[in-house]
Amino acid sequence: MVDYSPAMMTDMYEYTMLDATLQDGTANRRCVFEVFTRHLPEGRRYGVVAGTGRLLEALSEFQPSQADLQFLADRHIVSPETIKWLEHYSFSGSIRGYREGEAFFPNSPILQVEGTFAECTLLETLILSIFNYDSAVASAASRMTSAAKGRPCMDMGGRRTNEWSAVAASRAAIIGGFKGTANLLAAQLYDLPAIGTAAHCFTLVHDSERDAFESQIHALGKNTTLLVDTYNIEEAVKTAVAVGGPELGGVRIDSGDLAALAQRVRNQLDALGATGTKITVTNDLDEYALASLQTAPVDSYGVGTQLVTGSGAPTCAMVYKLTEREGASGVMEPVAKKSTNKATVPGRKLAYRSFQYNLAECEHVVAGSETELEAFGAPENWHDLLVDFVDHGQIDTQYTGHQAIMDAQAHHADVLAELPITAQSLMRGDPVIPTETTVLGPEATI
Amino acid sequence: MVDYSPAMMTDMYEYTMLDATLQDGTANRRCVFEVFTRHLPEGRRYGVVAGTGRLLEALSEFQPSQADLQFLADRHIVSPETIKWLEHYSFSGSIRGYREGEAFFPNSPILQVEGTFAECTLLETLILSIFNYDSAVASAASRMTSAAKGRPCMDMGGRRTNEWSAVAASRAAIIGGFKGTANLLAAQLYDLPAIGTAAHCFTLVHDSERDAFESQIHALGKNTTLLVDTYNIEEAVKTAVAVGGPELGGVRIDSGDLAALAQRVRNQLDALGATGTKITVTNDLDEYALASLQTAPVDSYGVGTQLVTGSGAPTCAMVYKLTEREGASGVMEPVAKKSTNKATVPGRKLAYRSFQYNLAECEHVVAGSETELEAFGAPENWHDLLVDFVDHGQIDTQYTGHQAIMDAQAHHADVLAELPITAQSLMRGDPVIPTETTVLGPEATI
Repeated sequence: MVDYSPAMMTDMYEYTMLDATLQDGTANRRCVFEVFTRHLPEGRRYGVVAGTGRLLEALSEFQPSQADLQFLADRHIVSPETIKWLEHYSFSGSIRGYREGEAFFPNSPILQVEGTFAECTLLETLILSIFNYDSAVASAASRMTSAAKGRPCMDMGGRRTNEWSAVAASRAAIIGGFKGTANLLAAQLYDLPAIGTAAHCFTLVHDSERDAFESQIHALGKNTTLLVDTYNIEEAVKTAVAVGGPELGGVRIDSGDLAALAQRVRNQLDALGATGTKITVTNDLDEYALASLQTAPVDSYGVGTQLVTGSGAPTCAMVYKLTEREGASGVMEPVAKKSTNKATVPGRKLAYRSFQYNLAECEHVVAGSETELEAFGAPENWHDLLVDFVDHGQIDTQYTGHQAIMDAQAHHADVLAELPITAQSLMRGDPVIPTETTVLGPEATI
Repeated sequence: MVDYSPAMMTDMYEYTMLDATLQDGTANRRCVFEVFTRHLPEGRRYGVVAGTGRLLEALSEFQPSQADLQFLADRHIVSPETIKWLEHYSFSGSIRGYREGEAFFPNSPILQVEGTFAECTLLETLILSIFNYDSAVASAASRMTSAAKGRPCMDMGGRRTNEWSAVAASRAAIIGGFKGTANLLAAQLYDLPAIGTAAHCFTLVHDSERDAFESQIHALGKNTTLLVDTYNIEEAVKTAVAVGGPELGGVRIDSGDLAALAQRVRNQLDALGATGTKITVTNDLDEYALASLQTAPVDSYGVGTQLVTGSGAPTCAMVYKLTEREGASGVMEPVAKKSTNKATVPGRKLAYRSFQYNLAECEHVVAGSETELEAFGAPENWHDLLVDFVDHGQIDTQYTGHQAIMDAQAHHADVLAELPITAQSLMRGDPVIPTETTVLGPEATI
């Protein structure tokens, strides 16, 4: 059992900024922060939002513990007055954004956090950690699911990433369309389907492969999946069917030329009468390997390393930027930094996706209020992308827990079906729809 | 507060294998499992072991909780008899391996776990998760530290990876030579130096940059570092020195052409009399960027994304393989799988590094016992690489906690100094020393 609070999963400067602004009074200014990425990973057509549910779950626990406060005091990170303020801290602001499972593009405002500077700034690091990793995995999972063309993909990647990342990855993989995970903690925390039977060491610890197969079937039943590439695959398949009979659930191949081996094993299984026995393949698969296996007689895939490392893009480069804040006069004012290549568009954003013939056409990011947009007459084919997750500190629980994950998976499937088919292409290229950013004002046109 | 035990940070098949082997009796066979990687990331010259301390800390808590046992029972993952066995589980085996901070190469046996099949197999996923991620970060950190040529590197990457990975990354970065971290939880858990002052939002929430700088200096003192690229760097530096005076601690540049900007800012600071004010740069740095900044007047680096994602290699492809086990007769027997391209060398390994003129020459992996090796007369210039971490369940605490991290950092610096200088080259190439694997026996030569 680890004794921690998410309030310390934070860069130190969030607390030093809190301290300085509490002293000068700007801590209480109302603010709007936005999460977005300036670009997709090179060649990617779309990204998939994931992490919202995890954020909401962490948010409810985001209060420094007594031990945390002692640490902040001992290190002189904040002043004693700020320690007092933190004793009563809980987030009382509002959060809205893209649904989990939604597609995102460059500059999509996937999350908006509104509240005082003090309460919003403390959340920056945690929000970015969650969205950057979870969305990277969901984005990779979505491409893999498309490439698998309906064959179930299973997450087996936990061992190739940090032990907690593994849990987040399992969850994000399900959002991206995966059907199950090997990771027990993810299965336990989120009530997800868990899968797995045996590794090579199981065969090796026994005196013979037959002993191992007999033991596994005794323990797990004939519907289990036997691993057949420890020694000689042909021999193993023969033994597997001899032991399990034609009711044997499946065999798994974890090495070699998977397409050719699947074909041989399928023919051998059929010749042995095990026509219903399924074939699972696992071995450093990514979306390109899955695409190349489309014509091979494979029934399901176990995906590891490339899933949990985002298939070449282990992070989403999402940032958390102040776009609007209360000024000295009490009026909300758009703000933006002007840093080279990192300048931001000032002002709170609205976000819409326009459609034609039921296909997405363009992502519209609009700096302005709904009232201002109404004055322009927002086109009818614009669908609003922002939903409310937290209302003045009240978390909408429909976006947390198991059901939120399944809803996100279903929503993602709907979203993907509405993107131009190029989205599912593995060829590198531009985002599948453009992002148009409009700043509302007297000069604006939509 | 999260209620978890590391015993669930495990792939389901570890538990189904446990269940089957408890039923057939092989669960109690003595076993040796080894952790190694078949290859370094493409072009890398060496890897750096990290994670051992975290593993030992997790090992002491590796017992399923009552809630975990209920979950395993409810899902029918294991039988009721196995639940009973798990109620009394704790690891009573032995673990030895490479020290944290040690260099590793293809097939280096960086960890050996010895015990019954049952107790060793349950640890597989957790061990691999920890070593694969932590070593990926330490390996990247080591290259960055070399490229920085003595200038301090600071970890600012937490926001670009999972929130727990962030903590592990901070720790691994220190082992690889980093001097501090922005991550408060890592600083708290491992008593590491924490760094950080302010972000762009701090400047933006104020009515002017001058207000922001005055507030920061009021709260953090003149020795603080001011962020100068929110609007116009030249103006900001002027304001910074006007507010902080020549005693100003430092300025940070987070965008643009860092080398050219550092030079201009250095000249401007010197002209303003702030000759002691330091320059920190941050902005998607990696080891190549650091190397290119060697002649720029920079005092320290903040490294983010590329550190926590292993600079292109976010995992180490480490595996956990059964190499020796008790047979039916009670005698230990070497075992190995024969899978295509994934065949393993049977038998427990010894590991040595040979030296000539105080430089490492070769990694020697020897399948056999120390007694057998003595019969050959192990050469005097072979240094033993394996140390004992756990002896029959007793964890050697010198390898856990804060001091172990600092020891690992020091050890890594020593190890790097003893590798051929090519190790510090950023050019892609082969591992800087070869790995020679020898299976002892009548035919063997050393």
